[in-house]
Amino acid sequence: MVPNPSTLLWGGRFTENMNDLMVTFNESLPFDKALHEADVRGSITFAKALRQLDLLTDKELSEITRGLEAVEKEWADGKFVIHPAVDEDIHTANERRLAELIGPAIAGKLHTGRSRNEQIATDLRIWVRTELDDLSEQLRTTLAVCAARAKTEIDVLMPGYTHFQRAQPVRFSHWLLSHATYLMGDLQRLDGVRERTNCCPLGVGALSGNPFGIDRTFLKEDLGFSSVHPNSLAAVGDRDFVAEILQWSSLLMVHLSRLSEDLIIYSTAEFNFVRVADAYSTGSSLMPQKKNPDSLETIRGKAGRVMGQASGFLSTLKSLPTAYNKDIQESVEPLFDCVKTVSQCLRIAAGVLSTLQINSEKMKAAPTADMLATDVADYLVVKGVPFRQTHHIAGAVVRKAEEKGVSIAELELPDLGKISPQFEADIVDVFDFERSVERRTAQGGRAGAQY
Amino acid sequence: MVPNPSTLLWGGRFTENMNDLMVTFNESLPFDKALHEADVRGSITFAKALRQLDLLTDKELSEITRGLEAVEKEWADGKFVIHPAVDEDIHTANERRLAELIGPAIAGKLHTGRSRNEQIATDLRIWVRTELDDLSEQLRTTLAVCAARAKTEIDVLMPGYTHFQRAQPVRFSHWLLSHATYLMGDLQRLDGVRERTNCCPLGVGALSGNPFGIDRTFLKEDLGFSSVHPNSLAAVGDRDFVAEILQWSSLLMVHLSRLSEDLIIYSTAEFNFVRVADAYSTGSSLMPQKKNPDSLETIRGKAGRVMGQASGFLSTLKSLPTAYNKDIQESVEPLFDCVKTVSQCLRIAAGVLSTLQINSEKMKAAPTADMLATDVADYLVVKGVPFRQTHHIAGAVVRKAEEKGVSIAELELPDLGKISPQFEADIVDVFDFERSVERRTAQGGRAGAQY
Amino acid sequence: MVPNPSTLLWGGRFTENMNDLMVTFNESLPFDKALHEADVRGSITFAKALRQLDLLTDKELSEITRGLEAVEKEWADGKFVIHPAVDEDIHTANERRLAELIGPAIAGKLHTGRSRNEQIATDLRIWVRTELDDLSEQLRTTLAVCAARAKTEIDVLMPGYTHFQRAQPVRFSHWLLSHATYLMGDLQRLDGVRERTNCCPLGVGALSGNPFGIDRTFLKEDLGFSSVHPNSLAAVGDRDFVAEILQWSSLLMVHLSRLSEDLIIYSTAEFNFVRVADAYSTGSSLMPQKKNPDSLETIRGKAGRVMGQASGFLSTLKSLPTAYNKDIQESVEPLFDCVKTVSQCLRIAAGVLSTLQINSEKMKAAPTADMLATDVADYLVVKGVPFRQTHHIAGAVVRKAEEKGVSIAELELPDLGKISPQFEADIVDVFDFERSVERRTAQGGRAGAQY
Amino acid sequence: MVPNPSTLLWGGRFTENMNDLMVTFNESLPFDKALHEADVRGSITFAKALRQLDLLTDKELSEITRGLEAVEKEWADGKFVIHPAVDEDIHTANERRLAELIGPAIAGKLHTGRSRNEQIATDLRIWVRTELDDLSEQLRTTLAVCAARAKTEIDVLMPGYTHFQRAQPVRFSHWLLSHATYLMGDLQRLDGVRERTNCCPLGVGALSGNPFGIDRTFLKEDLGFSSVHPNSLAAVGDRDFVAEILQWSSLLMVHLSRLSEDLIIYSTAEFNFVRVADAYSTGSSLMPQKKNPDSLETIRGKAGRVMGQASGFLSTLKSLPTAYNKDIQESVEPLFDCVKTVSQCLRIAAGVLSTLQINSEKMKAAPTADMLATDVADYLVVKGVPFRQTHHIAGAVVRKAEEKGVSIAELELPDLGKISPQFEADIVDVFDFERSVERRTAQGGRAGAQY
Repeated sequence: MVPNPSTLLWGGRFTENMNDLMVTFNESLPFDKALHEADVRGSITFAKALRQLDLLTDKELSEITRGLEAVEKEWADGKFVIHPAVDEDIHTANERRLAELIGPAIAGKLHTGRSRNEQIATDLRIWVRTELDDLSEQLRTTLAVCAARAKTEIDVLMPGYTHFQRAQPVRFSHWLLSHATYLMGDLQRLDGVRERTNCCPLGVGALSGNPFGIDRTFLKEDLGFSSVHPNSLAAVGDRDFVAEILQWSSLLMVHLSRLSEDLIIYSTAEFNFVRVADAYSTGSSLMPQKKNPDSLETIRGKAGRVMGQASGFLSTLKSLPTAYNKDIQESVEPLFDCVKTVSQCLRIAAGVLSTLQINSEKMKAAPTADMLATDVADYLVVKGVPFRQTHHIAGAVVRKAEEKGVSIAELELPDLGKISPQFEADIVDVFDFERSVERRTAQGGRAGAQY
Repeated sequence: MVPNPSTLLWGGRFTENMNDLMVTFNESLPFDKALHEADVRGSITFAKALRQLDLLTDKELSEITRGLEAVEKEWADGKFVIHPAVDEDIHTANERRLAELIGPAIAGKLHTGRSRNEQIATDLRIWVRTELDDLSEQLRTTLAVCAARAKTEIDVLMPGYTHFQRAQPVRFSHWLLSHATYLMGDLQRLDGVRERTNCCPLGVGALSGNPFGIDRTFLKEDLGFSSVHPNSLAAVGDRDFVAEILQWSSLLMVHLSRLSEDLIIYSTAEFNFVRVADAYSTGSSLMPQKKNPDSLETIRGKAGRVMGQASGFLSTLKSLPTAYNKDIQESVEPLFDCVKTVSQCLRIAAGVLSTLQINSEKMKAAPTADMLATDVADYLVVKGVPFRQTHHIAGAVVRKAEEKGVSIAELELPDLGKISPQFEADIVDVFDFERSVERRTAQGGRAGAQY
Repeated sequence: MVPNPSTLLWGGRFTENMNDLMVTFNESLPFDKALHEADVRGSITFAKALRQLDLLTDKELSEITRGLEAVEKEWADGKFVIHPAVDEDIHTANERRLAELIGPAIAGKLHTGRSRNEQIATDLRIWVRTELDDLSEQLRTTLAVCAARAKTEIDVLMPGYTHFQRAQPVRFSHWLLSHATYLMGDLQRLDGVRERTNCCPLGVGALSGNPFGIDRTFLKEDLGFSSVHPNSLAAVGDRDFVAEILQWSSLLMVHLSRLSEDLIIYSTAEFNFVRVADAYSTGSSLMPQKKNPDSLETIRGKAGRVMGQASGFLSTLKSLPTAYNKDIQESVEPLFDCVKTVSQCLRIAAGVLSTLQINSEKMKAAPTADMLATDVADYLVVKGVPFRQTHHIAGAVVRKAEEKGVSIAELELPDLGKISPQFEADIVDVFDFERSVERRTAQGGRAGAQY
Repeated sequence: MVPNPSTLLWGGRFTENMNDLMVTFNESLPFDKALHEADVRGSITFAKALRQLDLLTDKELSEITRGLEAVEKEWADGKFVIHPAVDEDIHTANERRLAELIGPAIAGKLHTGRSRNEQIATDLRIWVRTELDDLSEQLRTTLAVCAARAKTEIDVLMPGYTHFQRAQPVRFSHWLLSHATYLMGDLQRLDGVRERTNCCPLGVGALSGNPFGIDRTFLKEDLGFSSVHPNSLAAVGDRDFVAEILQWSSLLMVHLSRLSEDLIIYSTAEFNFVRVADAYSTGSSLMPQKKNPDSLETIRGKAGRVMGQASGFLSTLKSLPTAYNKDIQESVEPLFDCVKTVSQCLRIAAGVLSTLQINSEKMKAAPTADMLATDVADYLVVKGVPFRQTHHIAGAVVRKAEEKGVSIAELELPDLGKISPQFEADIVDVFDFERSVERRTAQGGRAGAQY
């Protein structure tokens, strides 16, 4: 391979300036330092396993453990001093500091048979499983808020919508729990995601396995993992757990965006069903009528952000060659940002829901009698008329009311009788929103007894 | 509301031409007819439940059942005649035909208390759970192919790569099973997706529940669902199962794209490790050297397609108001296309793998002695040298070999001894790729005994 | 390369069944037949260029031209008979049929120095540029509808919203033209997209150029392209025009989704500002109050579809090796579907807008006096009070009105005077929505004279 | 609206803790402080326009200008002190500081008739157009590197690939310029994006226009914009320029990912065509054979990141109601990160290309005689044989060579003559890679004279 003349031409110019840029471009410590505790924990466990193999003495293990704990204390106390351009990533930084604290002779044994590829994979999983537990807790809190409010507001009726057109009366509680239903799904899915994330890649080497017969079951147990990653080549490049978390978060954020959308519309002057508490709004000293539901709009907007992280990271993973490639470093920042965003949004959503003022008078006043047309049809079904006929009869009832300029509830029995002889005096019972709701006794329906 | 003058201005022009376009734009039968069997099955079950409520007589139930079976037979035989512009969707088409076959009086009772919103939700779930079972089967077959080949080719060594640079020797089987590991994850995830998909929305009405006290547990059981959807408002607008299937498929396709990428590169003249069978290649009568791995390239390309379906559908769902909105009709076509694409890709992948010719001589010849530098370091670790030192020593060994223009395996003991006194005669055992591989006895490593 | 035993094991099973599947998986005729006319046109031009090089005689050129025109007539008349498994793509199909019509001796010369790689690239560009012209026309029509309605409804006032909270009064025309402004941007962008699409790849061979010195300037001119693709390797794999069209379409669909969102909300019973014409709604014979704006919901939903096609195709393109790879066949179906979807949505949107009924009484009644609080502040600014003070004074005015339970327009001058001595009798002029609007005379504001 | 009991229940718990979180969730200063200079510049221009309207005196304008310049100097010197929870965004922060420096009486006039909605829209456009100019410069540099290397390496031949299978010989320069061709397209597209970004939204108020008749043409000119945004409602919510920049960046990153993919594969031991300079690689002291092209892998990975930002932001924009909504604050962070990422990647790519070592001997040795089979066919075409026949003849030549175990260049004329009588002694001229390349004289082909 002959030295290339063009390197002379361009190289000088670029290599000089580029070194700094390349350092910046390459280093991950600015973000992966968040993994300091996981990294220390993984190293202590690894040292224990080396002890089992007699690759460390008791004293060496004790020194390494003491040193690593000191390193972690520096991080926790905000006293860890980063050496720019030297501390490329959290693993290098911690090992560099360890050597300073306990001397290079012993510190130099810690990395025996271990690669940074397995370290970063292990650290990320340790770190994120705790975050997932926090998200689970926040999700449960949000669900508890929904349940509590549903119980409290059980008497509040409101229009149910499809196509955002008034359809049939429902309970406010039923509406609120419809959103909770979606979040219940997120909680169930989270279990699986957490389980698959909690799989131990430590002990696989750079790609081909550990040559000293390290006890991977011990590593798994000591780090609280629930399974051992079964293939070394796969383990170092496996960021499926990141993909899963981003996908899971996307769907959760879609749910929060749908809840936000409803509440933003219900907060308009025109609907006026709910009012977002001051703590979650931004006002205007000029226009006091203007209470902007910024919290909900931000949640709705951030759904796009998280969805983009999921689709972007899948694009990064697509067509990657086997084992470790540097491309997957792009998993770290999206994962960190996603987890933080979802956590914020869940807590804000719980706060908004728990402090939401509801305008029950306005909600109750909204349903109109024509929303009971289906109930009229159902009334006739019970009297034995086939449904497709009752459908037409109910339509005729609505038209008759329109002709007379009255609500269908105000039509007299004689008028109704001309449309269908099956109408009897008990038809008046149909025109009651509360009874209409209570009639839906089948499972999943809007009846109060459901909750 | 005063009639608007501008309607006169523009309306004429548009309403005339638009009617046809709006019909096309609105109707779903061209694609949702694939649901014919599920729709018939759901209707038969619904009729049974109406019988339990005495909303149908035995005779009526029997007529409806007979009629629906006849409708389904017409679909199965390709004899169902679609009435364009009348048969808006599969539900309308089937009910129209039923009325023709058994008369409108009885047929008109079938839809009692039922909405198309719950029908399409039910049909899609019935249809797709079978498709998921097929995908599961195809995934298992692909895994079986991997396992069988891994067993057969257990003796074949090849270079293991990270960053697509040669790193350490591995078994071909280990490489193949690293891809299988990812697919195993897909299989596990599929269980959860299938379980959540298999949830019964039937019996929830248009949005607010069924008013006749229909037995939703019966509906669930009779249709083979494993759970009852708990909230009527949520149930009619719930396409989370579609989102999940698209997300699951995206990750699976990422895995197939990574396998394809490896194999496409391994098929180049430069690597020449494998040769895709003729049945899965396109050749050229002009350039016989040119066997294009079209099958793998198409799989890789289709990964993008499926990923786009997932991200697109999440965008469709985002910020949707509560309950049913027409937007979610956009779930159907992506779901159909995705399921078909994934199925094709899995079967093609299994075919490619099962017929792949591997050039074991070329693979075995590829690893070079410098790929054993880590083994040299490990050798010294066992002799008691701290790892960070062995690291430098092994580096010096490589440089010495370069100076002498030989492979590190050809260095004599005296040369080695000058670098480190710990080298002894048994160092020759290190320079053996087979032993190097066998040394990785820890779980997940590359040793043959693992499989 | 020794035949592999595992092929015996699995191969038999797979190769048998797989042949059919692989044919299906590989062939593109089911969708690329839409390119028949472009393919014929490209071939006629190519034949002319071969004539210039004396690679065809006059008679041969004449035969080929006649034959190709006959092939195209068969397609146009719906009489072209496809030979399954033989006619892999539109190029193969057309050449096969040409040979049947004019004999293989002459037909066999057409492909001299030409590859299918350059053919498909050429065909797609010819086909899609016409589609882009249609989209441009449809976009202009939509804009014309907006302009005409804006002119007709110039007197209609409505609340202007930010955060979907009432902010300041605006004209309906101003609102409508705000959406038109976004569409104007799409029209401008389309020019650039069309220009870059209209670049001729013909004459580049399979990858490395044409060996007979074909006149690519002639090819460009004869096919109506505006430029010649400058690099053969790039030309065969260049689907940037597809990516651009999908991206352009995504942003356009975002604009239509925002228009749809506004109109869907404005169509609710609660807002009741507009009513979508029957032709673009679906009703319910049962619930006549229920007019669902399906057309707009479908547009909104399809925005996600198109966005997914764009992001999916970019994922397909990402990391593709140089020149032609089969992956890019995945450009064709998304492009076809996207262009069709956008065209439908534009025509439906124009139809909805042109036939939209607006409830001007309801709109005019919606603005409330507190929406003029900014005008009160502005009134004081003109009197010389610094803005930040006027801001507080206006806030005090609003609170005073709330205390008294009146609108701010009903406060007496003495009350106002207590808040700020600058209030004078002319303050009454401020409390007029029409004047408030007309005051915004600066460019881009809401004054009627703007249009 | 009755105070809701459940707020008592939950509110206390949440409102207390939530205040801090909501502040964090709502504030944008942590990222939008990057806009400090643009914000100051916009304010100075706005003050000048207020002077023209006599809403400021000469002295007031002078004070405001002096104060704003002092504020900017504090930012530039890193001395600006942020007041957490008070300085919500860059506009608030700058105005707060201005009031401290020049007193609230005058500072309080700056915001006359101006809203933060128009400020952020203006600031973002001012800031990003400069970034776009930098990207344009960096793109030009990258193109210059390509051109210079193409000129220097004009004599280097290499295999051209389709489907990553060797197809026909090409020049290395031709390959390099194929990538440059894509980047040329990016440069052209950037012009349009820059032009549309450079449109002035200042002077539109919160949504409905400026009430004092501000001279928007002056604002545009003074701030160096090329056009005035035509509609106030659209202007405050218009983030199409962000969407365009993200889309543009996505396609550019796709191009860099394709270049990276080629180079990563060409850097493998198996290809060994190129070697990434040390400055852009990471090595391993242990395995000197291992030079990982981290720079290129990172670029390839970051393509996914940028693609995700584009698709995510479009999801955020989709279905947004008219005018300003808080959701669009989600435009800022992706825009900042995208611009920084693209800039880094372009500079790294230029650096990698300019310092790339090419192994011309290895490249030249790679093409094999069978890659000239098309040239054999072309040779016969010139002798008058129809192309489809020459195709079969060339195939027979290749098979004959395989039978004899020689390259097609080694076949004797008698052997060739048996296949086709048209072969003559001059066939030997065909078997020359250099001539094969030079034969492609048509525009866009691989001949040296092209450059």
